[in-house]
Amino acid sequence: MGNFQVRTDLALEARESIGEAAGELRGVRVEEYYKDEEDVRVTKVMIDTRNAAKAMGKPVGIYVTMEAPAMVEPDEDYHREISECLAKELLELLPGSGDEQSVLVVGLGNREVTADSLGPQAVDNLFITRHIVREYGKAAYNCEKMNLVSALEPGVMAKTGMETAEIVKGVVSETAPDVLIVIDALAARSIRRLNRTIQITNTGIQPGSGVGNHRNALTKESLGVPVIAIGIPTVVDAATIVADAMEKLLEEEKEVDAVKLVSKQQISFPELNNMYMTGKDIDAVIKRVSYTVSEGINIALEM
Amino acid sequence: MGNFQVRTDLALEARESIGEAAGELRGVRVEEYYKDEEDVRVTKVMIDTRNAAKAMGKPVGIYVTMEAPAMVEPDEDYHREISECLAKELLELLPGSGDEQSVLVVGLGNREVTADSLGPQAVDNLFITRHIVREYGKAAYNCEKMNLVSALEPGVMAKTGMETAEIVKGVVSETAPDVLIVIDALAARSIRRLNRTIQITNTGIQPGSGVGNHRNALTKESLGVPVIAIGIPTVVDAATIVADAMEKLLEEEKEVDAVKLVSKQQISFPELNNMYMTGKDIDAVIKRVSYTVSEGINIALEM
Amino acid sequence: MGNFQVRTDLALEARESIGEAAGELRGVRVEEYYKDEEDVRVTKVMIDTRNAAKAMGKPVGIYVTMEAPAMVEPDEDYHREISECLAKELLELLPGSGDEQSVLVVGLGNREVTADSLGPQAVDNLFITRHIVREYGKAAYNCEKMNLVSALEPGVMAKTGMETAEIVKGVVSETAPDVLIVIDALAARSIRRLNRTIQITNTGIQPGSGVGNHRNALTKESLGVPVIAIGIPTVVDAATIVADAMEKLLEEEKEVDAVKLVSKQQISFPELNNMYMTGKDIDAVIKRVSYTVSEGINIALEM
Amino acid sequence: MGNFQVRTDLALEARESIGEAAGELRGVRVEEYYKDEEDVRVTKVMIDTRNAAKAMGKPVGIYVTMEAPAMVEPDEDYHREISECLAKELLELLPGSGDEQSVLVVGLGNREVTADSLGPQAVDNLFITRHIVREYGKAAYNCEKMNLVSALEPGVMAKTGMETAEIVKGVVSETAPDVLIVIDALAARSIRRLNRTIQITNTGIQPGSGVGNHRNALTKESLGVPVIAIGIPTVVDAATIVADAMEKLLEEEKEVDAVKLVSKQQISFPELNNMYMTGKDIDAVIKRVSYTVSEGINIALEM
Repeated sequence: MGNFQVRTDLALEARESIGEAAGELRGVRVEEYYKDEEDVRVTKVMIDTRNAAKAMGKPVGIYVTMEAPAMVEPDEDYHREISECLAKELLELLPGSGDEQSVLVVGLGNREVTADSLGPQAVDNLFITRHIVREYGKAAYNCEKMNLVSALEPGVMAKTGMETAEIVKGVVSETAPDVLIVIDALAARSIRRLNRTIQITNTGIQPGSGVGNHRNALTKESLGVPVIAIGIPTVVDAATIVADAMEKLLEEEKEVDAVKLVSKQQISFPELNNMYMTGKDIDAVIKRVSYTVSEGINIALEM
Repeated sequence: MGNFQVRTDLALEARESIGEAAGELRGVRVEEYYKDEEDVRVTKVMIDTRNAAKAMGKPVGIYVTMEAPAMVEPDEDYHREISECLAKELLELLPGSGDEQSVLVVGLGNREVTADSLGPQAVDNLFITRHIVREYGKAAYNCEKMNLVSALEPGVMAKTGMETAEIVKGVVSETAPDVLIVIDALAARSIRRLNRTIQITNTGIQPGSGVGNHRNALTKESLGVPVIAIGIPTVVDAATIVADAMEKLLEEEKEVDAVKLVSKQQISFPELNNMYMTGKDIDAVIKRVSYTVSEGINIALEM
Repeated sequence: MGNFQVRTDLALEARESIGEAAGELRGVRVEEYYKDEEDVRVTKVMIDTRNAAKAMGKPVGIYVTMEAPAMVEPDEDYHREISECLAKELLELLPGSGDEQSVLVVGLGNREVTADSLGPQAVDNLFITRHIVREYGKAAYNCEKMNLVSALEPGVMAKTGMETAEIVKGVVSETAPDVLIVIDALAARSIRRLNRTIQITNTGIQPGSGVGNHRNALTKESLGVPVIAIGIPTVVDAATIVADAMEKLLEEEKEVDAVKLVSKQQISFPELNNMYMTGKDIDAVIKRVSYTVSEGINIALEM
Repeated sequence: MGNFQVRTDLALEARESIGEAAGELRGVRVEEYYKDEEDVRVTKVMIDTRNAAKAMGKPVGIYVTMEAPAMVEPDEDYHREISECLAKELLELLPGSGDEQSVLVVGLGNREVTADSLGPQAVDNLFITRHIVREYGKAAYNCEKMNLVSALEPGVMAKTGMETAEIVKGVVSETAPDVLIVIDALAARSIRRLNRTIQITNTGIQPGSGVGNHRNALTKESLGVPVIAIGIPTVVDAATIVADAMEKLLEEEKEVDAVKLVSKQQISFPELNNMYMTGKDIDAVIKRVSYTVSEGINIALEM
């Protein structure tokens, strides 16, 4: 579809939309491997240069995508095998892992909007230790080494009157964590990735991403500490769906001028701007995948 | 778009999709009036014959649609003026109103899925009297006449393993109400009707309607008591959005064979079947409109 | 304390309050064993005769009490070992276990009152199969034998205007399960049993038990199918606390006439009637123990 | 009961426990008036000196108590007359009221524990303006003057690993409000004050107050901005109940040595330390009174 811009929070999809060329794009390296037993495909996109960042529309950094189709299905232990993969990938991106550190986990999003409640629900199941260790020492857990884990659910601007970034910045200044892990629900371009994909990146949260009212930046630049972002696409933008439907139709209608049609489309659907599309069983799905994410973090942070 | 079928739970939209002809359709009467002060447009579609029902794709009965654009906006008393309109229209459809009766209000839908939580949230704010009157008599309220109001939130099949209709039927048999009022979130065809329209009908709930896993019938035929349904469209079907986008585009692309394109579309998007589209502020909107509905019922049922 | 009557929903405590004599009470048999590995003490009180029932203040039937101190503590897999004990005891009381059957699980209580939300929270985590088996057959689960599990959260009378018993009776008539399992939060006499004890009985729910507005009977007599009740004490009645404090004090104050004091107390505290006492971390505790219960049921009902 | 110390967060009760003498205590002034129409009794306790503060066990400052028995009862507009009284009293304590200012409202407590959810539920219903005014100016509300209202629900330490005071301090540093309003559920000594009393004070939140895990200080000293605290007693400490029962009994048992008994009691009930007592309909009550509080703040802050 050429220069037609559809929204995605996934680096994997950004790369796909660039097409074949991305594989050879200077400054972009791609590694892929498949974990047979867990049925998880891991794709690591490393954007090394500013030029590459510009071409991809994503900042310089590492983007790990785990495609885990089983994640959306019910499972007795909430797919612990996927949590373990997540823990491993997370530890590779986490600066200073292996040393004791203070980690603040931030659950972005709106608990009251099911598709946007991944972050809040994930922080509900974290193993929080900071207050115990500060009061009773590591002895409380019979451990020699112990990360200090804290968690924050900052809420959404419509309810707080504050930008999420203001709240997080204030809490970071006051409690001085060594690193932030931020969990957020994402928008994907493709329906088949919904709730089946986890993206982990060391670039933090970029402005304009996420499900609800678009987020502000939560990055090392803005906060002064490294920020790892973990996201799962839970919605597809309405405009994307329309564009995809178009594309599919037009592929077979060679006589129609696709570019002309679509560029017209783009300016024609302002009413879709604040709409998103999600699945009818999103409540059960979010409950499950949020648990998979929180367990992944719990496994990564226990020492 | 001719015979192209898009899903809507609103009789008003069903009529529109038939077009001009509906106005003259035998067996269909339409009344409209506008309440200036409240900015509410009321359209009453009366389907009188089986033939007309077939043409409209809706059963014989009365369908009142209140278009109230203000409903979606914040308001100190939750748009009491709209609640009062609703109460008036509801009383006209309610058999035996004016006499004391036992009314069971059923809140359909899934409390955990924001766009589908209208019914459960609305029953939270009802003024429930049945248990008090049965235990202490009407004296408890210093009233001579008093409706017995009860409420049920049956939940959804994925969580109960039972069809909503089974649960409601059992409770109706056991508690023998004179009439049912059923509240449900609906699917609309048009985005501009979302959360701005209330439909009240004396035909109950038809199979396949509603937001989540499609409902079973809750009608006088199936339950043995009159069923009034109150619904507000809170979602648009994903397939509808695509169809609408198509239509808009193709209007201007005369050279494209619209029918050919769209009929192809129709069979091409199975992945949209379990998707719906809703607004990003749906939590705040549902909180407000559910209150408007419950107050409408409270006003109608106090004597 | 002699004939001083304090409220408890636990047969174990009823027996203790009768004292030593209960062991020798005709018509009451007691079995005890201790599961070392799981640190669970199981006491089985079998009330065999009407006379014994009268003496104990509990109907004829079997009361299994599992004392599991670990249950209140955090645990990675929510104390699966306790869930397994529960499953085993449950299967012994469940009539027809081993055969395929249709089981309706009822979560009593008020989801909005933390200490009373055990039942509603427990049904959230059940593995519900009835609708799937009815639509797709057992093949859907690749099983030869399969119980049909359904679940109901009837809510509380203040919100429904109906007695829980009316709702359950209606749903039982309509869906004809072979057996009911009812989950409820209980009142204990002793603080040290709070959230550490599971009681399982084949006598169903007796009038006046439970945390909130006292329950109606849910028994084989009232519903026509066997009823197994699973309960965990989450509150202590305020009056009980006062009585216990009294007792403790007076033990050492021989010169005070205990009976006189206490019988006076009893009539003196009407303001405590609608009060209950619970722990400050009741939210975390209920979240955990409800999961232990639901997993116990899931294990028992998978074939 | 002499020097016997029971816990209360209400200055009114602290004064009562000192007894008659408080009226004449140097450095303490008391004003009382009764609002006939609203049935609200207002008591203003002004502690002017350090000595008086020591005697009262409360810091120097103004404590307004509104006793409003109707507050606990259902009411169509959530007792707007009480909200209006609250607004008036709040404005008298609010520094700089009349000028435009930036006000951060903090809802303390644990949303998941019903009796401790007053703060979180109250902030849900606030009229939040800060983000709108900052983005669109006061023109967005057609006002010449407009307070900037923001809100925060900091959560509880068991879930965040951070002290509430750390979170609030960070957010205050970052967003620089002119004044804080903090809403909290309190512990009362007397059951008859539960949910019927509002306390407003300009001394902020003192360490050790509140329902759940005892709060840290949120005061002008600790935060650098004035802090108005609004509280409603929703629980009674278990130990208090026991002590009250004792007192009542012993009044009539002259021959018992009350002091001896009670001082013994005090050391004897460690198991009550983490227990509280509340009413069985606490969910409905908190829903109502939180709305009364939020409306009081909304009225006070609109200009």
